[in-house]
Amino acid sequence: MTWLRTPDGDPWGIHNLPYGSVTDSAGRRFAGVRIGDQVLDLGSCPARWSAYFADGALDEFLAAGRGIHAAVRTDLRGWLTDPGSEATLRPLLHPLDGLVAHRPFHVADYVDFYAFEAHAANVGRMFRAGEDPLTPNWKHLPIGYHGRAGSVVASGTPVVRPRGQLGPGRYGPSERLDFEAEVGFVVGTGTDPASTVPAEGFDEHVFGVVLLNDWSARDIQSWEYRPLGPMLGKSFATSIGSWVTPLDALADAWLPAPAQDPPPLPYLGAGRALDLRLEVRINGTLVSRPPFRQMYWTPAQLLAHLTSNGAALRTGDLFASGTVSGPERDQRGCLLELGWNGAEPLTLAGGATRAFLADGDEVTITAIAPGRSGPVALAEVSGRVEPAVSETPNA
Amino acid sequence: MTWLRTPDGDPWGIHNLPYGSVTDSAGRRFAGVRIGDQVLDLGSCPARWSAYFADGALDEFLAAGRGIHAAVRTDLRGWLTDPGSEATLRPLLHPLDGLVAHRPFHVADYVDFYAFEAHAANVGRMFRAGEDPLTPNWKHLPIGYHGRAGSVVASGTPVVRPRGQLGPGRYGPSERLDFEAEVGFVVGTGTDPASTVPAEGFDEHVFGVVLLNDWSARDIQSWEYRPLGPMLGKSFATSIGSWVTPLDALADAWLPAPAQDPPPLPYLGAGRALDLRLEVRINGTLVSRPPFRQMYWTPAQLLAHLTSNGAALRTGDLFASGTVSGPERDQRGCLLELGWNGAEPLTLAGGATRAFLADGDEVTITAIAPGRSGPVALAEVSGRVEPAVSETPNA
Repeated sequence: MTWLRTPDGDPWGIHNLPYGSVTDSAGRRFAGVRIGDQVLDLGSCPARWSAYFADGALDEFLAAGRGIHAAVRTDLRGWLTDPGSEATLRPLLHPLDGLVAHRPFHVADYVDFYAFEAHAANVGRMFRAGEDPLTPNWKHLPIGYHGRAGSVVASGTPVVRPRGQLGPGRYGPSERLDFEAEVGFVVGTGTDPASTVPAEGFDEHVFGVVLLNDWSARDIQSWEYRPLGPMLGKSFATSIGSWVTPLDALADAWLPAPAQDPPPLPYLGAGRALDLRLEVRINGTLVSRPPFRQMYWTPAQLLAHLTSNGAALRTGDLFASGTVSGPERDQRGCLLELGWNGAEPLTLAGGATRAFLADGDEVTITAIAPGRSGPVALAEVSGRVEPAVSETPNA
Repeated sequence: MTWLRTPDGDPWGIHNLPYGSVTDSAGRRFAGVRIGDQVLDLGSCPARWSAYFADGALDEFLAAGRGIHAAVRTDLRGWLTDPGSEATLRPLLHPLDGLVAHRPFHVADYVDFYAFEAHAANVGRMFRAGEDPLTPNWKHLPIGYHGRAGSVVASGTPVVRPRGQLGPGRYGPSERLDFEAEVGFVVGTGTDPASTVPAEGFDEHVFGVVLLNDWSARDIQSWEYRPLGPMLGKSFATSIGSWVTPLDALADAWLPAPAQDPPPLPYLGAGRALDLRLEVRINGTLVSRPPFRQMYWTPAQLLAHLTSNGAALRTGDLFASGTVSGPERDQRGCLLELGWNGAEPLTLAGGATRAFLADGDEVTITAIAPGRSGPVALAEVSGRVEPAVSETPNA
């Protein structure tokens, strides 16, 4: 189909085309689109829209609006299937494995939701034993909170084990470091203050999707979070995939919205479920297959709720699903749940066990979406745990 | 003392010199320093450092570091007291009342603390009746959470009453709209990930201070906040003063740290209390005099805690104290407390009563710090409540 001869069924084929920002071995940074095992330099393309990529990042392109997003994708798909374009584009292609990928956009505000019933109920059972696992509001509104945008890093960035207050009178390296497998949505077109985005407006404002790991220090979190929610237990690092999958690549992956009881208030609208099939590996061992389609709230409802008070959206806003967990044990999206707060450690290949993450552990999250032209891969999000730094402050 | 002949004891005299970003009547935007009722155009000053102000905002100056901050202040104080500089500087002075002031810097991450014991205890009594007013962690760590940086607006920006979920099955305009009188700290020099800022590093990283109003919809907040903290009840608007008072202007306003029991863990350090005397007015009626010096945690401890897990600081990070409240009724910094959640409405001049804010109400927060050369005024933060927009979504 394309003159690049990507293999049949390649999940990075021409039906995918995610966007990123990379540096080549000569130190030149450019924005690119990934096709197969190659990256096309978008800022050098013979098109007027190449100017949006001139600074080597995606921010101006994200802000340019849906018309430009569609035009670029149409041009790329046309060129990559037109043998007459090969001579022009070949010099603009770079092998992926010679490039370093960066966080692909500037994160404006980062909001994390809590939209999987299995996850919220499991956490409730562990953190608030004796109470209802779900708080009374859980099925009435998508619960979320703001995270630290400045701590969002690209896949591959090492994650230093945080220090923190682990309980009354105890400060030290977290002893309960965890990952959270999530899906993040990237805002393209912003809004003005005091406007809202109904569920039907989702496609107008969301550009695409990244996998996300919201690293969590469970000991810090469980001690600090009442009454204002998680802060330092989460704010040290959040990793995202380095390639943003545009919604246009996921058109075949939408499913009817899940059943919701009680029916959501009209301002939340309906939306649809998104069929992303996640896999989580620790040091190569597959430990979970979290099913994104089981999210209780739809992605469009998350956005409708987020803007329901008139909060403006900005280009680069990132909102995430919360930990993706299904009802089965091997569908749980974090170690807190997989190992039941340390009570049932996981066994990895080779026999090592993990209640929580050890220094040196590498966590990798991947995902596939179904598509008529073949599966669509989302860029992995990966990170290795480094030991806590010395207690000596280095202000 | 200065050739501008500011009156004796003028709280905007040469001992103050706050920084802002303004537009003149011709539409030209520039960064300026306020002296008396004038604003000096910093980007046009005959100094190498004028380049930091070239884009009309404070961001590059904030990032330039403490050496530049000190050099600019020294030059300004020298020029403004040297009659030989008058001829050069006079053309760069603009009357304040002909200028529109903007949000003076780009807000990177916004964190709000909860550091006043009287406030936290009062809210606990109202929101969690029957439980201890303070959560068990409150005296062990400064509780805080991330707010929405994109919703931080300049003083004078109208605040549209938010809509939201007010309880099970209810969506509409907030019926319990409130202000929160706070003090915000503006980060100049950032840090690298995995580094920490001990209490002694406060002056190295904090550039200055702004007054802050963290507008709050108490009905939305009380329904949504379990278990992940406030989100939509706060994320619609946070107002800050348009002039950043540098720490250098507040050198005489520091006091010994308050007594803390239990003693804080060593990573929190000590720091000192800051003597800012706030006043809150609703439609001109003085309703409260919140005493900032009574904050349980010191400003330096807030920063030490915020960075204790290795979270990096960025230029433009803003962290706020939480509602400033003292033990007396007329020292409470929000209507929730002043009117005891609607049970004891306030009476304003003219006899109108307020349990919460009405459309059209204007809330103004001012503050003065003591200084050997006379009081130092902080720029007011003011905002008027506009009616909720129609329910028809305008995506």
